[in-house]
Amino acid sequence: MDTSHPAVHPLGVFVAGGEHPPRRLRTKALQGMPGTYGGLALRLGQFAFAVSACATMICVKEFATVTAFCYLVASMVLQCAWSLTLAVIDVYALSTRRSLQNSLLISLFVVGDWVTSTLTFAAACSSTGIAVLIDHDLRDCGNQCGKYETSAALTFLSWVLISMSFLFTFWLLATR
Amino acid sequence: MDTSHPAVHPLGVFVAGGEHPPRRLRTKALQGMPGTYGGLALRLGQFAFAVSACATMICVKEFATVTAFCYLVASMVLQCAWSLTLAVIDVYALSTRRSLQNSLLISLFVVGDWVTSTLTFAAACSSTGIAVLIDHDLRDCGNQCGKYETSAALTFLSWVLISMSFLFTFWLLATR
Repeated sequence: MDTSHPAVHPLGVFVAGGEHPPRRLRTKALQGMPGTYGGLALRLGQFAFAVSACATMICVKEFATVTAFCYLVASMVLQCAWSLTLAVIDVYALSTRRSLQNSLLISLFVVGDWVTSTLTFAAACSSTGIAVLIDHDLRDCGNQCGKYETSAALTFLSWVLISMSFLFTFWLLATR
Repeated sequence: MDTSHPAVHPLGVFVAGGEHPPRRLRTKALQGMPGTYGGLALRLGQFAFAVSACATMICVKEFATVTAFCYLVASMVLQCAWSLTLAVIDVYALSTRRSLQNSLLISLFVVGDWVTSTLTFAAACSSTGIAVLIDHDLRDCGNQCGKYETSAALTFLSWVLISMSFLFTFWLLATR
Protein backbone atom coordinates (compact mmCIF):
# COMPACT_ATOMS: atom_id res chain seq x y z
CA MET A 1 0.00 0.00 0.00
CA ASP A 2 2.43 2.65 -1.23
CA THR A 3 -0.21 5.16 -2.22
CA SER A 4 -3.74 5.83 -1.06
CA HIS A 5 -6.82 6.62 -3.11
CA PRO A 6 -9.46 8.23 -0.92
CA ALA A 7 -12.82 8.33 -2.63
CA VAL A 8 -14.42 11.05 -0.53
CA HIS A 9 -11.86 13.43 1.03
CA PRO A 10 -8.64 13.72 -1.02
CA LEU A 11 -5.90 15.20 1.20
CA GLY A 12 -2.70 15.84 -0.74
CA VAL A 13 -2.67 12.44 -2.45
CA PHE A 14 -0.99 12.09 -5.84
CA VAL A 15 -1.87 9.54 -8.50
CA ALA A 16 0.93 8.13 -10.69
CA GLY A 17 0.98 9.95 -14.05
CA GLY A 18 -1.08 12.89 -12.69
CA GLU A 19 -0.24 16.58 -12.91
CA HIS A 20 1.52 16.75 -9.54
CA PRO A 21 4.00 13.87 -9.16
CA PRO A 22 5.27 13.21 -5.61
CA ARG A 23 8.67 14.73 -4.86
CA ARG A 24 9.91 11.47 -3.33
CA LEU A 25 8.66 7.93 -3.00
CA ARG A 26 6.70 6.98 0.05
CA THR A 27 8.18 4.47 2.48
CA LYS A 28 6.96 0.95 1.78
CA ALA A 29 4.43 0.08 4.48
CA LEU A 30 5.65 -2.87 6.55
CA GLN A 31 3.09 -5.02 8.36
CA GLY A 32 2.92 -3.51 11.85
CA MET A 33 3.00 0.12 10.72
CA PRO A 34 -0.13 2.28 11.11
CA GLY A 35 -2.81 1.54 8.53
CA THR A 36 -1.83 -2.11 7.94
CA TYR A 37 -3.43 -5.39 9.06
CA GLY A 38 -0.32 -6.09 11.17
CA GLY A 39 -0.68 -2.71 12.87
CA LEU A 40 -4.36 -3.39 13.59
CA ALA A 41 -3.51 -6.81 15.08
CA LEU A 42 -0.92 -5.18 17.38
CA ARG A 43 -3.48 -2.61 18.58
CA LEU A 44 -6.12 -5.26 19.27
CA GLY A 45 -3.54 -7.38 21.14
CA GLN A 46 -2.53 -4.40 23.31
CA PHE A 47 -6.17 -3.68 24.06
CA ALA A 48 -6.96 -7.31 24.97
CA PHE A 49 -3.97 -7.68 27.32
CA ALA A 50 -4.67 -4.29 28.95
CA VAL A 51 -8.32 -5.18 29.62
CA SER A 52 -7.28 -8.58 31.06
CA ALA A 53 -4.60 -7.01 33.32
CA CYS A 54 -7.06 -4.42 34.61
CA ALA A 55 -9.80 -6.99 35.24
CA THR A 56 -7.42 -9.36 37.06
CA MET A 57 -6.20 -6.60 39.37
CA ILE A 58 -9.69 -5.30 40.13
CA CYS A 59 -10.71 -8.85 41.19
CA VAL A 60 -8.49 -8.43 44.29
CA LYS A 61 -10.41 -6.39 46.90
CA GLU A 62 -7.30 -5.02 48.66
CA PHE A 63 -5.58 -3.72 45.53
CA ALA A 64 -6.61 -0.13 46.36
CA THR A 65 -4.45 -0.13 49.50
CA VAL A 66 -1.26 -0.22 47.39
CA THR A 67 -0.45 2.87 45.31
CA ALA A 68 1.42 0.88 42.64
CA PHE A 69 -1.58 -1.38 41.99
CA CYS A 70 -3.90 1.64 41.66
CA TYR A 71 -1.38 3.12 39.21
CA LEU A 72 -1.43 -0.14 37.21
CA VAL A 73 -5.22 0.07 36.84
CA ALA A 74 -5.04 3.75 35.82
CA SER A 75 -2.33 3.14 33.24
CA MET A 76 -4.19 0.13 31.83
CA VAL A 77 -7.32 2.27 31.37
CA LEU A 78 -5.21 4.82 29.46
CA GLN A 79 -3.62 2.00 27.42
CA CYS A 80 -7.07 0.62 26.52
CA ALA A 81 -8.29 4.05 25.38
CA TRP A 82 -5.17 4.70 23.26
CA SER A 83 -5.03 1.25 21.64
CA LEU A 84 -8.76 1.24 20.86
CA THR A 85 -8.54 4.71 19.29
CA LEU A 86 -5.61 3.66 17.10
CA ALA A 87 -7.39 0.40 16.19
CA VAL A 88 -10.43 2.41 14.99
CA ILE A 89 -8.11 4.66 12.91
CA ASP A 90 -6.46 1.55 11.42
CA VAL A 91 -9.87 0.06 10.51
CA TYR A 92 -10.87 3.37 8.89
CA ALA A 93 -7.59 3.53 6.92
CA LEU A 94 -7.93 -0.09 5.77
CA SER A 95 -11.59 0.20 4.81
CA THR A 96 -11.07 3.42 2.79
CA ARG A 97 -7.66 2.26 1.40
CA ARG A 98 -6.18 5.44 2.79
CA SER A 99 -2.50 5.75 3.76
CA LEU A 100 -1.64 7.13 7.20
CA GLN A 101 1.82 8.34 6.08
CA ASN A 102 1.25 11.95 7.10
CA SER A 103 4.17 13.47 9.04
CA LEU A 104 2.04 15.18 11.67
CA LEU A 105 -0.10 12.09 12.23
CA ILE A 106 2.94 9.80 12.50
CA SER A 107 4.65 12.17 14.94
CA LEU A 108 1.50 12.10 17.08
CA PHE A 109 1.45 8.27 16.97
CA VAL A 110 5.15 8.10 17.92
CA VAL A 111 4.72 10.41 20.92
CA GLY A 112 1.52 8.67 22.04
CA ASP A 113 3.04 5.20 21.70
CA TRP A 114 6.17 6.27 23.59
CA VAL A 115 4.18 7.81 26.46
CA THR A 116 1.76 4.90 26.83
CA SER A 117 4.50 2.26 26.52
CA THR A 118 6.57 4.03 29.18
CA LEU A 119 3.62 4.30 31.57
CA THR A 120 2.63 0.67 30.94
CA PHE A 121 6.16 -0.61 31.55
CA ALA A 122 6.45 1.48 34.73
CA ALA A 123 3.17 -0.01 35.99
CA ALA A 124 4.30 -3.56 35.20
CA CYS A 125 7.70 -3.12 36.89
CA SER A 126 6.42 -1.43 40.06
CA SER A 127 3.68 -4.06 40.49
CA THR A 128 6.15 -6.89 39.90
CA GLY A 129 8.55 -5.37 42.45
CA ILE A 130 5.82 -5.33 45.10
CA ALA A 131 4.51 -8.80 44.21
CA VAL A 132 8.06 -10.18 44.60
CA LEU A 133 8.49 -8.27 47.88
CA ILE A 134 5.29 -9.77 49.33
CA ASP A 135 5.75 -13.27 47.91
CA HIS A 136 9.52 -13.83 48.08
CA ASP A 137 11.04 -11.35 50.56
CA LEU A 138 8.29 -11.10 53.22
CA ARG A 139 6.64 -14.51 52.54
CA ASP A 140 3.32 -12.93 53.53
CA CYS A 141 1.31 -13.73 50.49
CA GLY A 142 -2.14 -15.03 51.38
CA ASN A 143 -3.91 -16.19 48.23
CA GLN A 144 -3.72 -12.95 46.25
CA CYS A 145 -0.12 -13.06 44.98
CA GLY A 146 -1.08 -15.19 41.99
CA LYS A 147 -3.50 -12.52 40.81
CA TYR A 148 -0.99 -9.71 41.35
CA GLU A 149 1.62 -11.63 39.36
CA THR A 150 -0.84 -12.53 36.58
CA SER A 151 -1.90 -8.90 36.25
CA ALA A 152 1.74 -7.76 36.09
CA ALA A 153 2.53 -10.44 33.47
CA LEU A 154 -0.43 -9.35 31.29
CA THR A 155 0.76 -5.74 31.60
CA PHE A 156 4.23 -6.83 30.41
CA LEU A 157 2.65 -8.56 27.38
CA SER A 158 0.68 -5.41 26.56
CA TRP A 159 3.93 -3.43 26.82
CA VAL A 160 5.73 -5.79 24.39
CA LEU A 161 3.05 -5.13 21.76
CA ILE A 162 2.93 -1.34 22.30
CA SER A 163 6.75 -1.28 22.06
CA MET A 164 6.55 -3.06 18.71
CA SER A 165 4.01 -0.48 17.51
CA PHE A 166 6.30 2.32 18.69
CA LEU A 167 9.34 0.89 16.90
CA PHE A 168 7.43 0.40 13.61
CA THR A 169 6.00 3.94 13.76
CA PHE A 170 9.34 5.51 14.75
CA TRP A 171 11.02 3.67 11.86
CA LEU A 172 8.35 5.01 9.50
CA LEU A 173 8.91 8.57 10.78
CA ALA A 174 12.70 8.28 10.44
CA THR A 175 12.61 6.83 6.90
CA ARG A 176 10.15 9.31 5.40
CA MET B 1 31.99 14.76 10.41
CA ASP B 2 30.45 13.08 7.37
CA THR B 3 33.47 11.00 6.44
CA SER B 4 36.32 9.48 8.37
CA HIS B 5 40.01 9.25 7.54
CA PRO B 6 41.64 6.48 9.55
CA ALA B 7 45.40 6.67 9.41
CA VAL B 8 46.18 3.14 10.58
CA HIS B 9 43.36 0.69 9.85
CA PRO B 10 41.31 1.68 6.79
CA LEU B 11 37.95 -0.15 6.94
CA GLY B 12 35.87 0.52 3.85
CA VAL B 13 36.27 4.30 3.98
CA PHE B 14 36.12 6.31 0.76
CA VAL B 15 37.73 9.66 0.09
CA ALA B 16 35.92 12.17 -2.15
CA GLY B 17 37.36 12.01 -5.70
CA GLY B 18 38.94 8.59 -5.09
CA GLU B 19 38.55 5.45 -7.22
CA HIS B 20 35.62 4.07 -5.23
CA PRO B 21 33.00 6.76 -4.61
CA PRO B 22 30.38 5.95 -1.95
CA ARG B 23 27.09 4.70 -3.36
CA ARG B 24 25.07 7.05 -1.15
CA LEU B 25 25.74 9.96 1.17
CA ARG B 26 26.26 9.28 4.82
CA THR B 27 23.75 10.61 7.32
CA LYS B 28 24.80 13.94 8.81
CA ALA B 29 25.99 13.25 12.36
CA LEU B 30 23.78 15.05 14.90
CA GLN B 31 25.21 15.91 18.31
CA GLY B 32 24.18 12.96 20.50
CA MET B 33 24.89 10.27 17.93
CA PRO B 34 27.83 7.87 18.45
CA GLY B 35 31.21 9.44 17.73
CA THR B 36 30.17 13.04 18.55
CA TYR B 37 30.89 15.27 21.56
CA GLY B 38 27.17 15.26 22.38
CA GLY B 39 27.17 11.44 22.35
CA LEU B 40 30.21 11.37 24.65
CA ALA B 41 28.52 13.81 27.07
CA LEU B 42 25.41 11.56 27.18
CA ARG B 43 27.56 8.51 27.97
CA LEU B 44 29.46 10.30 30.74
CA GLY B 45 26.17 11.55 32.22
CA GLN B 46 24.70 8.03 32.21
CA PHE B 47 27.82 6.69 33.90
CA ALA B 48 27.84 9.42 36.58
CA PHE B 49 24.15 8.95 37.49
CA ALA B 50 24.50 5.15 37.52
CA VAL B 51 27.52 5.28 39.86
CA SER B 52 25.67 7.74 42.17
CA ALA B 53 22.51 5.59 42.24
CA CYS B 54 24.53 2.45 43.03
CA ALA B 55 26.55 4.17 45.76
CA THR B 56 23.44 5.69 47.40
CA MET B 57 21.70 2.31 47.54
CA ILE B 58 24.75 0.47 48.90
CA CYS B 59 24.94 3.04 51.76
CA VAL B 60 21.76 1.46 53.22
CA LYS B 61 22.71 -1.71 55.09
CA GLU B 62 19.32 -3.44 54.72
CA PHE B 63 19.05 -2.99 50.95
CA ALA B 64 20.04 -6.65 50.38
CA THR B 65 16.84 -7.88 52.07
CA VAL B 66 14.71 -6.53 49.20
CA THR B 67 15.06 -8.23 45.81
CA ALA B 68 14.16 -5.08 43.84
CA PHE B 69 16.96 -3.06 45.51
CA CYS B 70 19.52 -5.81 44.76
CA TYR B 71 18.29 -5.76 41.15
CA LEU B 72 18.77 -1.97 41.05
CA VAL B 73 22.42 -2.37 42.11
CA ALA B 74 23.00 -5.13 39.54
CA SER B 75 21.43 -3.16 36.69
CA MET B 76 23.40 -0.02 37.66
CA VAL B 77 26.65 -2.02 37.50
CA LEU B 78 25.69 -3.19 34.01
CA GLN B 79 24.74 0.38 33.04
CA CYS B 80 28.13 1.68 34.27
CA ALA B 81 30.01 -0.96 32.26
CA TRP B 82 28.02 -0.27 29.06
CA SER B 83 28.19 3.55 29.28
CA LEU B 84 31.90 3.53 30.08
CA THR B 85 32.65 1.21 27.16
CA LEU B 86 30.70 3.41 24.76
CA ALA B 87 32.37 6.55 26.18
CA VAL B 88 35.80 5.01 25.47
CA ILE B 89 34.69 4.18 21.91
CA ASP B 90 33.45 7.78 21.45
CA VAL B 91 36.78 9.18 22.71
CA TYR B 92 38.64 6.87 20.30
CA ALA B 93 36.40 7.95 17.38
CA LEU B 94 36.80 11.66 18.22
CA SER B 95 40.57 11.48 18.71
CA THR B 96 41.16 9.57 15.45
CA ARG B 97 38.45 11.54 13.55
CA ARG B 98 36.88 8.22 12.64
CA SER B 99 33.17 7.88 11.87
CA LEU B 100 31.17 5.19 13.71
CA GLN B 101 28.55 4.97 10.93
CA ASN B 102 29.03 1.26 10.33
CA SER B 103 25.75 -0.69 10.07
CA LEU B 104 26.88 -3.61 12.23
CA LEU B 105 28.32 -1.31 14.91
CA ILE B 106 25.19 0.89 14.99
CA SER B 107 22.92 -2.16 15.24
CA LEU B 108 25.00 -3.36 18.20
CA PHE B 109 24.70 0.07 19.86
CA VAL B 110 20.92 0.14 19.28
CA VAL B 111 20.39 -3.31 20.81
CA GLY B 112 22.73 -2.58 23.73
CA ASP B 113 21.12 0.79 24.44
CA TRP B 114 17.63 -0.72 24.28
CA VAL B 115 18.52 -3.58 26.64
CA THR B 116 20.30 -1.39 29.19
CA SER B 117 17.65 1.34 29.09
CA THR B 118 14.90 -1.24 29.62
CA LEU B 119 16.72 -2.85 32.56
CA THR B 120 17.52 0.55 34.08
CA PHE B 121 13.92 1.75 33.80
CA ALA B 122 12.64 -1.52 35.29
CA ALA B 123 15.01 -1.10 38.25
CA ALA B 124 13.94 2.51 38.78
CA CYS B 125 10.21 1.68 38.64
CA SER B 126 10.34 -1.38 40.91
CA SER B 127 12.44 0.48 43.50
CA THR B 128 10.12 3.49 43.37
CA GLY B 129 7.09 1.23 43.80
CA ILE B 130 8.60 -0.29 46.95
CA ALA B 131 9.80 3.06 48.34
CA VAL B 132 6.26 4.46 47.91
CA LEU B 133 4.79 1.31 49.51
CA ILE B 134 7.02 1.66 52.60
CA ASP B 135 6.81 5.45 52.86
CA HIS B 136 3.22 6.24 51.83
CA ASP B 137 1.12 3.06 52.10
CA LEU B 138 2.65 1.36 55.18
CA ARG B 139 4.09 4.53 56.80
CA ASP B 140 6.93 2.33 58.15
CA CYS B 141 9.86 4.24 56.84
CA GLY B 142 12.56 4.69 59.48
CA ASN B 143 15.27 6.99 58.15
CA GLN B 144 16.17 5.04 55.02
CA CYS B 145 13.34 6.04 52.67
CA GLY B 146 15.16 9.20 51.59
CA LYS B 147 18.11 7.14 50.36
CA TYR B 148 15.86 4.65 48.54
CA GLU B 149 14.03 7.50 46.82
CA THR B 150 17.26 9.33 45.95
CA SER B 151 18.72 6.17 44.44
CA ALA B 152 15.56 5.59 42.39
CA ALA B 153 15.57 9.23 41.21
CA LEU B 154 19.23 8.96 40.08
CA THR B 155 18.35 5.76 38.25
CA PHE B 156 15.53 7.59 36.45
CA LEU B 157 17.97 10.34 35.40
CA SER B 158 20.41 7.74 34.06
CA TRP B 159 17.51 6.18 32.14
CA VAL B 160 16.56 9.55 30.56
CA LEU B 161 20.10 9.91 29.17
CA ILE B 162 20.36 6.30 27.93
CA SER B 163 16.95 6.71 26.24
CA MET B 164 18.25 9.80 24.43
CA SER B 165 21.30 7.82 23.27
CA PHE B 166 19.00 5.02 22.08
CA LEU B 167 16.76 7.39 20.10
CA PHE B 168 19.74 9.12 18.42
CA THR B 169 21.32 5.79 17.48
CA PHE B 170 18.02 4.27 16.29
CA TRP B 171 17.41 7.37 14.16
CA LEU B 172 20.91 6.99 12.68
CA LEU B 173 20.24 3.31 11.89
CA ALA B 174 16.87 4.09 10.29
CA THR B 175 18.19 6.96 8.13
CA ARG B 176 21.28 5.22 6.76
